[in-house]
Amino acid sequence: MNEFRSKFLEVYSLLKSELLHDPAFEFTDDSRQWVERMLDYNVPGGKLNRGLSVIDSYKLLKQGGKLTEDEVFLASALGWCIEWLQAYFLILDDIMDNAVTRRGQPCWFRVPKVGMVAVNDGTMLRNHISRILKNHFKEKPYYVDLMELFNEVEFQTASGQMIDLITTLEGEKDLSKYSLPLHHRIVQYKTAYYSFYLPVACALLMAGENLENHNDVKNILIDMGTYFQVQDDYLDCFGLPDVIGKIGTDIEDFKCSWLVVKALELSDEKQKSLLHENYGKADTDCVARVKELYKALNLEGVFSEYERKSYEKLLKSIEVHPSDAVQAVLKSFLAKIYKRQK
Amino acid sequence: MNEFRSKFLEVYSLLKSELLHDPAFEFTDDSRQWVERMLDYNVPGGKLNRGLSVIDSYKLLKQGGKLTEDEVFLASALGWCIEWLQAYFLILDDIMDNAVTRRGQPCWFRVPKVGMVAVNDGTMLRNHISRILKNHFKEKPYYVDLMELFNEVEFQTASGQMIDLITTLEGEKDLSKYSLPLHHRIVQYKTAYYSFYLPVACALLMAGENLENHNDVKNILIDMGTYFQVQDDYLDCFGLPDVIGKIGTDIEDFKCSWLVVKALELSDEKQKSLLHENYGKADTDCVARVKELYKALNLEGVFSEYERKSYEKLLKSIEVHPSDAVQAVLKSFLAKIYKRQK
Repeated sequence: MNEFRSKFLEVYSLLKSELLHDPAFEFTDDSRQWVERMLDYNVPGGKLNRGLSVIDSYKLLKQGGKLTEDEVFLASALGWCIEWLQAYFLILDDIMDNAVTRRGQPCWFRVPKVGMVAVNDGTMLRNHISRILKNHFKEKPYYVDLMELFNEVEFQTASGQMIDLITTLEGEKDLSKYSLPLHHRIVQYKTAYYSFYLPVACALLMAGENLENHNDVKNILIDMGTYFQVQDDYLDCFGLPDVIGKIGTDIEDFKCSWLVVKALELSDEKQKSLLHENYGKADTDCVARVKELYKALNLEGVFSEYERKSYEKLLKSIEVHPSDAVQAVLKSFLAKIYKRQK
Repeated sequence: MNEFRSKFLEVYSLLKSELLHDPAFEFTDDSRQWVERMLDYNVPGGKLNRGLSVIDSYKLLKQGGKLTEDEVFLASALGWCIEWLQAYFLILDDIMDNAVTRRGQPCWFRVPKVGMVAVNDGTMLRNHISRILKNHFKEKPYYVDLMELFNEVEFQTASGQMIDLITTLEGEKDLSKYSLPLHHRIVQYKTAYYSFYLPVACALLMAGENLENHNDVKNILIDMGTYFQVQDDYLDCFGLPDVIGKIGTDIEDFKCSWLVVKALELSDEKQKSLLHENYGKADTDCVARVKELYKALNLEGVFSEYERKSYEKLLKSIEVHPSDAVQAVLKSFLAKIYKRQK
């Protein structure tokens, strides 16, 4: 249990209350209730790992010194900005994917009377981030850097989502487009920037650092985020549904998963045909044939080897970093994800 | 013809080219082509009034002094940011309204193979604004003010769109919710801020002004934007289709139009029932009955009177403004819209 969890949750209530009384808009009762319900439904219901990691990272950067109330509050506020950003992405992604459930409940756009209003709700969440930053960071020397950071990371995530969407356009199911470089690019932009780089970048800014001096940290975190997504792809097929909390459907959904990309790479012509014929179909026999091929190609072993090598490589690049505090931050991220089962 | 029009269009090509080579993202050929087509389809095809008015306003603030190349470029870039913002709103609004056409062509989400990718394209347009501001205004003393201005206006527009959406939720067609204060609030937030205040605010910032000292200008422009939208509502029903370039459908669409709000205010019980029974139905007889009632209530005369009074009031509030240059800006806006037929 994270030591900051309960404090972090308190900050949510405070930020929400400020947003519901934002002087830039005259709320009606109806609209205030709508926003409150929308926030409670979409923002705090995840694992909160990204948000909490801002506080954890900032504490490590302070090298064990105790955080003041104010520091915990500010790090929490930035953590919530990332959770808000994630909620914004998820609401819109679910609409674009026509998804059914999210975090164990119906996707927001499927809630009665919400429908396409969810599009506007998504953009509202993005706007809230700017309001939170203005309310609490306007006087900080790193205010502009924070705004630019969130802008750039949002742009990168939307760009990653775009290549993901246009390579898997309906009616263009063409497996031959899938490759390791494409997979890497989608993952890097769509997931790694906001999930791994953004929390640490927020902590670095709070600690007074200039992000331009930390390109090495960015690169390590992007590699870590890539490794994390490969695990995700692996667990979608080989994880235990009871442990990961869902039944994977990447094969049915024609996803550009690391597994299918690796399979294409390792297949002979006959196996490639099998993949082309069976990948991306809802039929259980088709799915079973793909999984069989994954086993025949020993993708479990290939993944283990990838995991071992990634870990070694990441550890090496962390250990050449000149700052012990930064090393500690990066190692704590790595420890949290290495050999994860969920 | 606006004297800056051709220069303004040149700036579009330059901004587009920069965005298609943004170093924050490694484009693939496919994704670069997608973004270019998306921009050309959605950004430059409107009347460009909002964008051009930034340059016009800035010129008036400079009291007739000739603008340098650089000033024209910067004012054009800000003008395009507003056109980008508008394109972003329109793409998402059309999805939410399930609209069919926009600016004489199919809505972007209805273009083959686009579909819900349009949601991501919309957010991409918003992100482009931040990239443009960073590319060209980062070193300006008003950079933070510009970012905050766009953030706040976007928030206000999304908030206006929210009250519009939740008061007209499917299955809740309840005319008794419609009132003049509600109409005023929707119009103020959803249209007036970004269409009237934002262009002038951009010009003021470029001219070195502090927006906090210009609340009176903001209020006048918001009132002007409200008057503009009332004209829009009026022309939807009483304008000439050949002149306004479309056939109005506010009655069929159950829109919270100034006309229906006024009609409710002026109706006796029997006329109110007629409105309740016929408003918001696609049936041509229902529409005809509503229009008949509008005529019986002399809404044309009521509108003329509203138009005259609004003009007088706006002119008065403009003429007490201490700065001649600011007066010139406001008067030029007013002249453009007074008694417009389209």
